[in-house]
Amino acid sequence: MSDFAQIPMQFVGPMKVSGPVLEGDYEVPLATFETPLWPSVNRGARVSMNCAGGIKCTLVDERMTRSVLFEAPDASAALMALQSIKAGMPKLKEVVEGTSRFAKLIDLHSQIAGNLLFIRFEFTTGDASGHNMCTQASEALMNHILEYHPELQYGSISGNYCSDKKATAVNGILGRGKYVVAEIVIPGKICRRYLKTTPEKVVQLNIRKNLIGTMLAGGLRSANAHYANMLLGFYLATGQDAANIVEGSQGITTAEVRGEDLYFAVTLPNLIIGTVGNGKGLDFVLENMQRMGLADQREPGENSRRLACLCAGTVLCGELSLLAAQTNPGELMDAHRRIERGR
Amino acid sequence: MSDFAQIPMQFVGPMKVSGPVLEGDYEVPLATFETPLWPSVNRGARVSMNCAGGIKCTLVDERMTRSVLFEAPDASAALMALQSIKAGMPKLKEVVEGTSRFAKLIDLHSQIAGNLLFIRFEFTTGDASGHNMCTQASEALMNHILEYHPELQYGSISGNYCSDKKATAVNGILGRGKYVVAEIVIPGKICRRYLKTTPEKVVQLNIRKNLIGTMLAGGLRSANAHYANMLLGFYLATGQDAANIVEGSQGITTAEVRGEDLYFAVTLPNLIIGTVGNGKGLDFVLENMQRMGLADQREPGENSRRLACLCAGTVLCGELSLLAAQTNPGELMDAHRRIERGR
Amino acid sequence: MSDFAQIPMQFVGPMKVSGPVLEGDYEVPLATFETPLWPSVNRGARVSMNCAGGIKCTLVDERMTRSVLFEAPDASAALMALQSIKAGMPKLKEVVEGTSRFAKLIDLHSQIAGNLLFIRFEFTTGDASGHNMCTQASEALMNHILEYHPELQYGSISGNYCSDKKATAVNGILGRGKYVVAEIVIPGKICRRYLKTTPEKVVQLNIRKNLIGTMLAGGLRSANAHYANMLLGFYLATGQDAANIVEGSQGITTAEVRGEDLYFAVTLPNLIIGTVGNGKGLDFVLENMQRMGLADQREPGENSRRLACLCAGTVLCGELSLLAAQTNPGELMDAHRRIERGR
Amino acid sequence: MSDFAQIPMQFVGPMKVSGPVLEGDYEVPLATFETPLWPSVNRGARVSMNCAGGIKCTLVDERMTRSVLFEAPDASAALMALQSIKAGMPKLKEVVEGTSRFAKLIDLHSQIAGNLLFIRFEFTTGDASGHNMCTQASEALMNHILEYHPELQYGSISGNYCSDKKATAVNGILGRGKYVVAEIVIPGKICRRYLKTTPEKVVQLNIRKNLIGTMLAGGLRSANAHYANMLLGFYLATGQDAANIVEGSQGITTAEVRGEDLYFAVTLPNLIIGTVGNGKGLDFVLENMQRMGLADQREPGENSRRLACLCAGTVLCGELSLLAAQTNPGELMDAHRRIERGR
Repeated sequence: MSDFAQIPMQFVGPMKVSGPVLEGDYEVPLATFETPLWPSVNRGARVSMNCAGGIKCTLVDERMTRSVLFEAPDASAALMALQSIKAGMPKLKEVVEGTSRFAKLIDLHSQIAGNLLFIRFEFTTGDASGHNMCTQASEALMNHILEYHPELQYGSISGNYCSDKKATAVNGILGRGKYVVAEIVIPGKICRRYLKTTPEKVVQLNIRKNLIGTMLAGGLRSANAHYANMLLGFYLATGQDAANIVEGSQGITTAEVRGEDLYFAVTLPNLIIGTVGNGKGLDFVLENMQRMGLADQREPGENSRRLACLCAGTVLCGELSLLAAQTNPGELMDAHRRIERGR
Repeated sequence: MSDFAQIPMQFVGPMKVSGPVLEGDYEVPLATFETPLWPSVNRGARVSMNCAGGIKCTLVDERMTRSVLFEAPDASAALMALQSIKAGMPKLKEVVEGTSRFAKLIDLHSQIAGNLLFIRFEFTTGDASGHNMCTQASEALMNHILEYHPELQYGSISGNYCSDKKATAVNGILGRGKYVVAEIVIPGKICRRYLKTTPEKVVQLNIRKNLIGTMLAGGLRSANAHYANMLLGFYLATGQDAANIVEGSQGITTAEVRGEDLYFAVTLPNLIIGTVGNGKGLDFVLENMQRMGLADQREPGENSRRLACLCAGTVLCGELSLLAAQTNPGELMDAHRRIERGR
Repeated sequence: MSDFAQIPMQFVGPMKVSGPVLEGDYEVPLATFETPLWPSVNRGARVSMNCAGGIKCTLVDERMTRSVLFEAPDASAALMALQSIKAGMPKLKEVVEGTSRFAKLIDLHSQIAGNLLFIRFEFTTGDASGHNMCTQASEALMNHILEYHPELQYGSISGNYCSDKKATAVNGILGRGKYVVAEIVIPGKICRRYLKTTPEKVVQLNIRKNLIGTMLAGGLRSANAHYANMLLGFYLATGQDAANIVEGSQGITTAEVRGEDLYFAVTLPNLIIGTVGNGKGLDFVLENMQRMGLADQREPGENSRRLACLCAGTVLCGELSLLAAQTNPGELMDAHRRIERGR
Repeated sequence: MSDFAQIPMQFVGPMKVSGPVLEGDYEVPLATFETPLWPSVNRGARVSMNCAGGIKCTLVDERMTRSVLFEAPDASAALMALQSIKAGMPKLKEVVEGTSRFAKLIDLHSQIAGNLLFIRFEFTTGDASGHNMCTQASEALMNHILEYHPELQYGSISGNYCSDKKATAVNGILGRGKYVVAEIVIPGKICRRYLKTTPEKVVQLNIRKNLIGTMLAGGLRSANAHYANMLLGFYLATGQDAANIVEGSQGITTAEVRGEDLYFAVTLPNLIIGTVGNGKGLDFVLENMQRMGLADQREPGENSRRLACLCAGTVLCGELSLLAAQTNPGELMDAHRRIERGR
C-alpha cells in the first residue's frame, strides 16, 4: 500500500526580491496545516512590494557535510593519521570526484576526543541538497583512508559531528547548507500602514523576545520568532527533506532603526535545499518549481541558489509579519480567530 | 487558489507496543519524501514483534506552554509583581478555565532579566497539542495581570521562553508536550538475525556517535541519530504541526548490554502532538487515526496520549534500525542504492 | 609542604549600592593577576557614586542544588518511584534537617532518561554557599530513598544534573546559587564625563556584542562581556570556591536608552557565594569581610545575601566600564599600555 | 593600598607523564580553598606511577583568538569586504608581525549576521597565553582593514565571537588555547587497589553522569565531573588568568573497558595557558615553574606546551579520582569528613 498525505498548499506573494543571485517579483508556495501562515507571509510580501529594492538576498556560503568516525589506538595515533589525511587532500578530492559528477570536496574539519577521530567532510553538491551524495562520497573516503591507515578502525559513516537534523552549534559555525542573509529597509510609513506598528517597536521586540528571550531559554543560535514555520511550508511545497528545518531554524533576526526607517534582516546559515533529488520529481513540486522559474536549465548550483534566496525571502516575510503582530496586544489572537471563523 | 502538496505516505509495521497507556500490535503511517525511511522503520517494527512485551512506552509528563513578556520599571518591581501573580494562582486558573473547556493552568515558571519579566504558563490541553488554546489562555492571563498590575507594561504575548519551534534547553528541563520513554529489550540472537549486529556494537556506537559526537558538535539535549526523520513522517501523516519537530528532535537514546540482551531506549521529552485541532479534520488524517484506533471517543487526553506512545514507538524503530545499520561499514549506502534501484 | 599562592589584591570603590538587601557606599576587594581590572571596576564604581540611588540590587531567588542518580529496572519503575518520592516530600525534609542546622530542602526536579532517574534536590543553606551541606543532605536522602525503594540502585551521588562548575542551561532555568539583578540609571552627562561614551553607543554595543555575538558563538545564557573576571577577583578575595565562576559567568547584560539616560543592568542567576565555610577562616578573608561589614552576627543567610549583592554590584561596575571602553576604538589597548608602562 | 590574597597551595604527585611533548615524573602545584582536592589528585597521580607509560599527553592544536566586529551597509557589502580581507591574508600577517615578536596570524573565521561582520583572528603567541598580544594585533588589523575599507565602520575590538571566558561552542569547534588529550591505561588490579573500583564501574558512571547527565542538564561540550576544580588550582599556582577556566572546563572525559584494563582519557580543547606574561613574574610562580622544569630557556612555545600537558595530566588525575569515588556510595562524604576532621 502506498498513498499520499495531502498538505494544504497555497502560493503567497508576490514578494519583491533583489541581489546578485536573483531579481524580480516572485510568488512562493507554502504547504502547511497551519493556514494562518499564508496571510501572515502575504502581509510581509506586500510590504516588500512597497520598499525600494524589496528584499535583498545575499548568499554568503554553501556546502554540505558528513562526518565520519574512526577509532585509533590513542590520541597520538589519531593526530598523526589526521595530519597525513590532511596532507593527502588532493587525492581525497579525486576520490570524491570518482563518486559523482557534482560532488566536490572543499574542506574538512576534525575533532579528536580520547582515541576517537571525527572528520567532517565538506562538499559542494550542485543543485542537490546533497545528503546521499555526501554519504556516498564519505563512504568512498572512509574506504580510501582505512586502506592507507591500517591503524584506524571503522567507527561510523556518520559520527553526529555533521550534524544532520539535530540542534547543534557546529553547523552555524562551520557551515552546512546555504548561508543566506535576507534584508529589507522599510520606510516608517509603510511600517505603520501595512504592519500597524513602528520601527522602534519592532526593534525593541526583537531584542527582548528573539535575543534576550531565546538566551534565557538556553537557546542555541536561534534568535528568531518562527523561522521553522516558513521553512516547513516552503520545504514541503518544494520537495525538500523537511526534517532539515531542525538546523534550518537556527538563524538570527536583526533589526535596527535607521532614521525614519526599519532595517530588518533574517540570517539563515543552514538552509539545506535543492532543486534536484528525492521528492523533486513529484508533479506538484515540478509545477511549483516552474512557477518560480526554477525548472530552466542553468549552471549547476544556480537553480538551488535561487531557491535558497526565495526561501530566505519567505522567511523574512513571515518573521516580519509575526513580530509586527506581537508588538500589538491582542492582534495575534484576533487574526487567528478571524481566519478560523472564516473557514 | 488552494491546493495540496502530496507527500508519499505508507503504513509501516506492525510493531508491538505495551505499557500503561496502550497495548497491542499497531501499524503506523509515515509521510515523507525520503522513502527509504519506510523499510528502515519496518525493520525495527519487526524486531519489536519478536521481543517479549515489544516496545514498552511510559508517559512521564504532559503540558503545553506559552511564555508572556512584561516590562516592569525595574527588577524589584518585576519581582514583587511576580510574587503577587504567583500568590493569585487560583484566580489565574479560573481565568484560564473561562477561555476553553479543556485548557487548565497547572504551573508557571519565570525569568527576570533586568526589568523584564518572562512568565511561562504551563497548561494541560486535553487531546489538542494546544498551541492556540495556550495563546488564547495566555492572552486572557495577560489582560488579567495587566489590569491588576498597572506598573507592568505589555511586552509580548510570546517571549521565546515558551519555547516554540526553537532549539533551546528550557523545554527539556521544564517540559513541553508529551514526555515519553519507549524501551525494548532485544535478545542477542534477534539482534543478530534482524539487525545484523550485536548488542555490544549498538551500545558502543550509541556512546560514540549519539553521546560523544553530539557533545563535540555543541549539541543541545540531542543525543540521537535521526529522531527528526520519524517525527516528520509521523507528524505529517497525522495532521500535526510538523514544525514542532525542532524541539521534538531534542531527545536522548540510551542503550546498555544486559547479559546476552540489548536494552535500547528513546527518551522524547517534547512530543507536541494531538488528535484534535488544525489538520485533524482532513480525510487522510481521519482515516489514519481510525486505523490506529484513535478515532474512538475516550476521556479527554486519552487519545493523544496513545498517539504520543505510538509516535515514540515509531521513533524507537527507526532509531534502532539506523544505528544497527551504521555499526556495519557499507550497509547504509547499500540499502539506499537497493531501494533507489528498485524504483 | 604547604604554602600559599599570593594573588595581588586591592580594594576598589567605593560604589553606591541600594535595595532591600543593603544600602550604602562600599569598597570591595578584588584579587587577580590581571590588575588592569582594578581601575576598570573603579571607573564603574565612580559612576555609581554620581547616580541617584547608585546600583540597585535585587535578590530574586536563592537555592543550592545536588542531583543524585538512581538506576531503575525501566522507565515505568523510575516514574513510579519518582511519584512516590515526591509524595513523601515532608519526610524528605525531615531527613535533611537531621543532617544540618542550616540545610532545608525546598524543592526537587527530575529527569528520566530510559531507566535512569536523576533527582535534583534544591536546598537553602544559610550563610554557606552549601556544596558540602548539600552533598551530605543528598547522601542522607539517597540512603533514605534506597531503603524504601529496593527496586532502585545507587547510580551516583552526583549525576551532573546539579550542575556544578559546568556550562549548562539547567542552573539558569531552575536556579542555583543567588539570583541577583543589579541595575543603574546613568544620566547622559555622567556617561560622557566618566565613561567617555553615550547611552546610545553602550546600548548598541550590548546588542551587537553581548547578545548577537554570543548567539553566533553558540553561547549558552552568557550574554555579557566579562563577568568571569570580576567574579574571579571577588571570589578569590572573599574565600569562595572560585571554580563556580563557570556557572556564575552565565549571566545577561541588558541596556536601554531612557530619554537622556542609560539604563544598564546585569542579571546573575547563579552566584554561588557564602560568608561561612571553606576558605572563610583565612585571615585576609576575615579582614575583607569585616571591611565590607559582613562579619557581624545577623540572621542566617543575611550576610551571604549582602555579599551576593556586593558581588553583583562589582560585576556591574566592571561590565559597564569595559563596554564603555569598547565603544571607543583604541581605548582598550591604550588603557592596558598605560597601566603596563606605569608598573 | 595593595596586598595579596593567600590561597592555600601544595604540590601533589609525582605523576608519570609521557608523550612527544614531555616525559618524566612530575610534581605539580595546586592553589585552592578546597583542600580535599589535594589528596584526590594525589590518588590519581599515584595510579599513574603504577601504569606503564603513565599519562600520555598529546597536543592536538594551539592558537589564541580575538574576534573583531565591523558594521557594513548591508550583508552584501560585508561579504565583499570579507572576501577582500581574506584575499589580503599575506598583508594581514605582516601587520601582525609588526605588533609583536611572537604573535603570528595563522587563520581567520567569520560570521555575517545582517549587516554585521564578525572576524575571528587566530594567532600563535609563543609562550604567552596571549590575551594582550592578540588584542594588540587585532587592533592593528582593524586599523589596517578600516583604512582600506571605508565602507566598514568600527563595531568593537571584541565581538564575543572570540570567545573569552564565556560558555560557548565556538572555542571547542574552531580552537582556542592548547588542545590537549591526556590518556591512561590502568590495569584492573591497579584500579581496584588504588581506586577501590573496577574498570566497568568507572566506564558506566562516565556514560551516565558525564555524558547523559550533562546532556540532560543542557550542557555545552562539558562532559566531565569537575575539570574546573583542577584547572582553577593549577592556574592560580602558575600565574594564569584563571577566569579562563570558563572555557577550559568545557572538555570531555571518555572511558572504555579494554580487556582487564580501564582506558581513561580527558580531552581539553581550550587550555589557555602560558609561561610568560601577567602573573608569571611573581616569586611563587617562578618557583613553581622552576620546580616543574619550566624556567629553562627553550624554543618559544615549548615551555607553555609542557605546562599545558602537565595541566592536562593533573586534570586527568583529579577526574579519575572523583569518578572512582562516586562509583562507591558514601565514599565521597567519608573522604570529606575525614579531611575536615583532620584539620
